[in-house]
Amino acid sequence: MPNTTGKKIKIGVIGASGYTGADLIRLAACHPGMEISALAANTHAGKPLADVFPHLGFVDAPPLVKAEEVDWSSLDAVFCGLPHGTAQDIIATLPESVKVIDMSADFRLKDTSTYAKWYGREHAATHLLEGAAYGLTEHNREAIRAARLVACPGCYPTATLLALLPLVAAKLVDASDIIVDAKSGVSGAGRSLKQNILFSEAGEGLSPYAIAGHRHAPEIEQEISKAAGANVFVNFTPHLVPMSRGELVTCYVRLAGSHTAADLAAALAERYAGEPFVKLAPKGTLPSTQFVRGSNFCLIGVYADRIPGRAIVVSTIDNLVKGSAGQAVQNFNLMFGFEETAGIAQQPLFP
Amino acid sequence: MPNTTGKKIKIGVIGASGYTGADLIRLAACHPGMEISALAANTHAGKPLADVFPHLGFVDAPPLVKAEEVDWSSLDAVFCGLPHGTAQDIIATLPESVKVIDMSADFRLKDTSTYAKWYGREHAATHLLEGAAYGLTEHNREAIRAARLVACPGCYPTATLLALLPLVAAKLVDASDIIVDAKSGVSGAGRSLKQNILFSEAGEGLSPYAIAGHRHAPEIEQEISKAAGANVFVNFTPHLVPMSRGELVTCYVRLAGSHTAADLAAALAERYAGEPFVKLAPKGTLPSTQFVRGSNFCLIGVYADRIPGRAIVVSTIDNLVKGSAGQAVQNFNLMFGFEETAGIAQQPLFP
Amino acid sequence: MPNTTGKKIKIGVIGASGYTGADLIRLAACHPGMEISALAANTHAGKPLADVFPHLGFVDAPPLVKAEEVDWSSLDAVFCGLPHGTAQDIIATLPESVKVIDMSADFRLKDTSTYAKWYGREHAATHLLEGAAYGLTEHNREAIRAARLVACPGCYPTATLLALLPLVAAKLVDASDIIVDAKSGVSGAGRSLKQNILFSEAGEGLSPYAIAGHRHAPEIEQEISKAAGANVFVNFTPHLVPMSRGELVTCYVRLAGSHTAADLAAALAERYAGEPFVKLAPKGTLPSTQFVRGSNFCLIGVYADRIPGRAIVVSTIDNLVKGSAGQAVQNFNLMFGFEETAGIAQQPLFP
Amino acid sequence: MPNTTGKKIKIGVIGASGYTGADLIRLAACHPGMEISALAANTHAGKPLADVFPHLGFVDAPPLVKAEEVDWSSLDAVFCGLPHGTAQDIIATLPESVKVIDMSADFRLKDTSTYAKWYGREHAATHLLEGAAYGLTEHNREAIRAARLVACPGCYPTATLLALLPLVAAKLVDASDIIVDAKSGVSGAGRSLKQNILFSEAGEGLSPYAIAGHRHAPEIEQEISKAAGANVFVNFTPHLVPMSRGELVTCYVRLAGSHTAADLAAALAERYAGEPFVKLAPKGTLPSTQFVRGSNFCLIGVYADRIPGRAIVVSTIDNLVKGSAGQAVQNFNLMFGFEETAGIAQQPLFP
Repeated sequence: MPNTTGKKIKIGVIGASGYTGADLIRLAACHPGMEISALAANTHAGKPLADVFPHLGFVDAPPLVKAEEVDWSSLDAVFCGLPHGTAQDIIATLPESVKVIDMSADFRLKDTSTYAKWYGREHAATHLLEGAAYGLTEHNREAIRAARLVACPGCYPTATLLALLPLVAAKLVDASDIIVDAKSGVSGAGRSLKQNILFSEAGEGLSPYAIAGHRHAPEIEQEISKAAGANVFVNFTPHLVPMSRGELVTCYVRLAGSHTAADLAAALAERYAGEPFVKLAPKGTLPSTQFVRGSNFCLIGVYADRIPGRAIVVSTIDNLVKGSAGQAVQNFNLMFGFEETAGIAQQPLFP
Repeated sequence: MPNTTGKKIKIGVIGASGYTGADLIRLAACHPGMEISALAANTHAGKPLADVFPHLGFVDAPPLVKAEEVDWSSLDAVFCGLPHGTAQDIIATLPESVKVIDMSADFRLKDTSTYAKWYGREHAATHLLEGAAYGLTEHNREAIRAARLVACPGCYPTATLLALLPLVAAKLVDASDIIVDAKSGVSGAGRSLKQNILFSEAGEGLSPYAIAGHRHAPEIEQEISKAAGANVFVNFTPHLVPMSRGELVTCYVRLAGSHTAADLAAALAERYAGEPFVKLAPKGTLPSTQFVRGSNFCLIGVYADRIPGRAIVVSTIDNLVKGSAGQAVQNFNLMFGFEETAGIAQQPLFP
Repeated sequence: MPNTTGKKIKIGVIGASGYTGADLIRLAACHPGMEISALAANTHAGKPLADVFPHLGFVDAPPLVKAEEVDWSSLDAVFCGLPHGTAQDIIATLPESVKVIDMSADFRLKDTSTYAKWYGREHAATHLLEGAAYGLTEHNREAIRAARLVACPGCYPTATLLALLPLVAAKLVDASDIIVDAKSGVSGAGRSLKQNILFSEAGEGLSPYAIAGHRHAPEIEQEISKAAGANVFVNFTPHLVPMSRGELVTCYVRLAGSHTAADLAAALAERYAGEPFVKLAPKGTLPSTQFVRGSNFCLIGVYADRIPGRAIVVSTIDNLVKGSAGQAVQNFNLMFGFEETAGIAQQPLFP
Repeated sequence: MPNTTGKKIKIGVIGASGYTGADLIRLAACHPGMEISALAANTHAGKPLADVFPHLGFVDAPPLVKAEEVDWSSLDAVFCGLPHGTAQDIIATLPESVKVIDMSADFRLKDTSTYAKWYGREHAATHLLEGAAYGLTEHNREAIRAARLVACPGCYPTATLLALLPLVAAKLVDASDIIVDAKSGVSGAGRSLKQNILFSEAGEGLSPYAIAGHRHAPEIEQEISKAAGANVFVNFTPHLVPMSRGELVTCYVRLAGSHTAADLAAALAERYAGEPFVKLAPKGTLPSTQFVRGSNFCLIGVYADRIPGRAIVVSTIDNLVKGSAGQAVQNFNLMFGFEETAGIAQQPLFP
C-alpha cells in the first residue's frame, strides 16, 4: 500500500562511519520520506557527522553515538552498514517494531555452515535467517515488501545476478560453466586502513585479488544454483581497478542448446521491460561504469563470442548505490510504501 | 514571487553535447519544475541523447536537433552551454518571451573592448549586455530575479569571487596584491579533442597552463575592481589536476591595516550566514574538492600565513555544478520563483 | 655473436611522435650501444623532439624530419612505430642493409587474407612477410637473431602468449576453450585524439571495448593455433582501465585430462627458468600491473578455479615496454649481438 | 677523484620498506658501482624483499633484517630512509668508516631548537650536525664530496630552492615576500596507513594540507635566509594531488628594483648552464610533473605576472627521485668519485 500519510519515517544508520553508511546518509538526506534520527558508529561516537565525513557536514543529522545509546524503539527503520559478523549481533537486539535493511553479509547466505566457512564464525542469529528476504529488488519484490528484515545482496552479486538469473532460470545458458571476471573500484574495499588500497599502491595499476576465494562467490552460487535447480560452482575472479566507484562484471557463458546471444538479449529485455533501474544498453553503447556512476542504474549488454556456442554478458553498477545503499533505499521504499524510485532517481554523474 | 502554479517550465538547452550542457540535463531531469522540451547541438543533430551521453540514456528528453529547428517561442527558458563567441549569436535571435541563462562567457564582461581582446572577436550583441545580470547568485539576487538574461560566471571566478568579494568590499585585504593559485579538474577544459587532456597526457601529472593569460583573469579583475572601487590586476595562475571534476583556488592576500585572518573568517561567516550553498569549512576540515563533488556547495576556509600581514583564503567548488550548471539552475530558481535549492539539493558524492 | 666492437649502432625511429616511438627513444637514450641518428614523424617534421615530447627534451637526438628526408643507408637499424597499414609502405622502401624492428601490426599476421579482413587493406609488402620473424623473444630467439625484419607482437598477444603458449604446446589445456579477459591502460589506445580516451571520459571508469572484434584476436589465434596444431577461436575481450600504462590478461582455461593448476605452474616455471624477463609470481604475490610498470618484465601466476577442471592464468606486462618498445630493444639486442638485457634492465617504477 | 678501481661499493639501506628506501633500491639495482649488501627494516625483518615490494622481487639483494643484525663495518655506505627522529639514533651508532647519505629530515636543520620545535623531540646527535653537508647537490658540491654525512633535502625544499636560491642570492627578488604554492603526489605522504591517503579519499580530489605548518617550511626558510643574509618567513602551502609521483611548486615573487621576469630566467639559465639535471623549460613547454616522472630532472620556468613588479617561478621534480633517492645517489656519486649521472641517467617515464 502506498505511503500517503506524509509522515516521515524515522530512520537510524548503524555503521555510519563506513562508505556504505555514508552513501546511505547522502541518499537519505534528499529522500522525501526519511528523517535521519540516529547515527551509530562506535569508534567515532561523540563526533558530529562533519568530523567523520566532511562532505556530509551540512546534512541535518544528529551526531554519532554508540549503538547502545540509541533508543531503537523510537525508530521505524534501521539501515545497517556494519562489517559482516558484527551486524548480526546488533540486529538480533533490535525491537521487533523496527524494520531492518541490512547492507552487511550476515543474512545473505541461507546455509549456516557455508556462512561459518566463509565468514569465520558461527552464525549467532539463525532465528532471523529464515525470515530474512534476499534484497535483490527486481527478483524478490513481494518478499521484500512483506519482510521485517531484508538482506541486501553484495555489490558483485547484484551486478552478476541481475545479468544472469533470468538466463539461468530460462535455461538459456549452462549454469555449470559460468565465468565471472569482475572489476571493482577501490571503495568496494571499504574505509579500513589497508596497504593495498593506499592511493600510491592502488593507483595507476590493476590487480586481481581473492582469486577463487572471494566471499561473494558462495552468494552468487547460492542464487544461481537456486535458479538452475542444481548446485553449481561459479568462477568469480575479482580485480581492483584504480577508480573509487563502479563495478563491472564480464560474464562468459556457454549457450544452452542452439540459443544465441540475441536470444539472451531478448530474454533480458523482456524480463526487465518497465524496470526503472535495470536497463539493456542501447545499440552503440557498451556498458561502462562511468555511465552509472552515482546512480541506482544497472546497465547490461549481451555479445556474441568468437568461440562458437558461447556468449558474453556485461553488467555494470555503482557498487555503493545499486550495489549497496541505493538498493537498500529501493527496498526501504517497497517496505514503507513509497514510490520505488523515491530518493534514488538521480541521473549518473558524468564526467 | 513563489511559483505555485504547479505547471512545469518548458526549458531548452543549447550546446547539449558539451559537459556543461550534460550536467544541466542531469540536474533538470530531477528538477521538480522543469520539463526538458528541446535539446540543440548542431554537430550531433538527429541523434538521441543516449548516443551523445550514454549516462543520460534514460532521461525523458527529446532527441538533439539543430538550433534553427527549435521553436523557441514554445519555451519558457533556455540554458546556453555553447562555447563563447557562438553563444551570443544564438542568444541574440531568441524571442523576448524566453528567459536566458547563459553559461558561456559572452555576457560576463561588461567592457566590449576587454571582451574583444580576450575572446578574439567583436561582441555582436552589445544591446543585450547592459541588461544581462551577472549570475553570481549570492551577490546579485535582486538583479537575477528581475533579469531576462543572466550571464553565469566562469567556474574559476565563482570560486574566487565568493571567497574574496566580501573581503575586498570591506577593505579587509589589499585589492592590488591578490594572488590566486587555481587548480581545476580536467572537465573544465571541455569535451573538445585536445592532446593535453588525453588520459595518458593529463593523468598522473600536474601542469600549470595559461599563466598570466587565462580568460577568467579579466572577469575576476572586473568584479574585484568593482568591489574595490579601483582598477586592479589580479594574479591568476591555473593548474590542471588529474581528476575530472573539482576546482580549488588558494588565494594569497595581504591584510589591510591590522586585520587578521580571523577577521576575514568572521567577515565571511557573517556574509554567508544562512546561505544554503556557501559554507565556511568547520574547524578541522580543510576545503577539498572531494567534499563538494557533484554538489552545488562552495566551501571556504581562511588561514593565517607565516609571513606577517598575510593570509590565505581557500575556496572550492565543483566546476560543473556551482561553477556552471548548478549555479545556472540556482539562478533559474530565482527567475521562476522556485525554492532556491530546488533540484540542486544533492549532497556531494564521496568517495 | 656478441657485439664486442664498442661501435655504436646507428638507429632510426619511424613514427617518433607516437607513444611507442617515444618509449623507444626513452630506452635508446640509455642503451649502451645505440646512437639515435634519425627520427621521422611526418606530421611533426621540422620540430625538435622537445616540442613533441617535452619529457625527452634533453635527449641527444636530431630533430624530427619527414621519412623521405632520411638517408636510410647511413643507418644500421630502424624501429618502426607507425600505425598499421602505413608501416609496410615505408618498410618496403628501406635498403636491405638496414635491419628493421617493426612495432606495428603489419608483419604479424602470416595470412594475407586475414590481414586484409582485419586491417581493411590488402597487404602491399607480401614479399617481406615470409622472412619476417615473429618477435615474441622468448619463443623465437633463433629466428629473431637471423632475421632482417622482426615483427614485434602486439601488447595483448605478448602478455597472452607468454602465459599460454607453453601450456597449449604441452597440451595441458584445451586450446578450443580459452577465454582471455584483457585489461589495458589508456596509452594502449595511442596518442591520436579520440573522445573515449579523454581524461574526463576514461578516468574513474572501466569500459569494455571491441568485444569479439579486436585486431589482436586473430594474432593470438594464429599463434595458439600453431602451438595447438589446429585452428581455434579464442575469446578475447579487452577493457579500458583508468591508468596510463599496464596490461593484464586473466585467462580462463579448461584443463586437459587430469591436469591441475599446479601442473600448469610447474610447466611455466620450467619453461621460463633462467629467463631474465619472464617470471612466475612468487607465492604471496598476485601479478599486478604496478609490479611491472616501466619495466620489461612479464609476471605470470596460475590459480585453481572453483569450477572443477578449470584453471586461471594471469599475466601482466607494461604495454609500452615488454608489450612494445622494450621487447623491440630486446630483439635488437639479439640481432646485433648485445647482452639481451642491455638498455632494458631497469626495475619497475613503483609507486 | 674519480673511482677507477672497478670495485663495487657495498651499500646498505636502512628503512628499506618505505617508498624512499624502495626507490633507492630500484636505482641501486642498476647502478654500475653499487652492491646491495644489507637491507634493514625492523618491522619486516626476516622477509625477502619480494614480500615487501613485489616490484623489486627479482633484484639481487639480501633479505630484510633488523638494523641491529647488520655488520655495518663491512659496508662502505649507508642510505637512510627512516622517518625523522628514528634516523638520528641509528646514524649515531654507525662506525666512522661508513659514509652516510641520510634521506630523512634529521640533519637538515642546523638550529637544534628549530628542530625540536618542528619535530617534537630534542636532537640526540648534535655532534654530527655540524659536519653534515646539506645535500642540495647543485649548490653544495664541494662540501658533499668531502662529507662523511650528507643530509639530503626534503622533496619540497629541493624543488623550491633550486628555483629560488639563485634569485635570492643575486637579490633579484624580495626574500621577505615569497609565496610557495606547492603540489605533491600522494607518495610524498609515505607508506604508513593514514585515512586521507586511501585511494578513495585522495583520488579524484585536491586537498590543501598543513597550511602554514609544514615541516619543510623551516627548512626552506633556513636556506632562503642564508642566501638572503637575513631571516625571513616564507609562505609554503602544500596541496595533495591525485597522482602517485611528482611535485610542483608555483612560486610567487616580488621583483627587486626594476628587474623583470626575463632577468630571473637569464639568471637561472646562467646558473644552471651545463648542469645535467637542472634545466630551464624550453619555450613552449610549461614545467609539468609528467615531464620529469621517474627521473632525476628538475624543470624550471619563469613567467611575468599580471601584477606589475611580480613574477612567477615554477619548478617541478619527481619527489622520490630528485626529491629523495635520486639526489641521494647523485650525492653518493660525488662522495665516491663516480660520474655524477651514474645510475640516474634514465629519461622520464611518459606517458
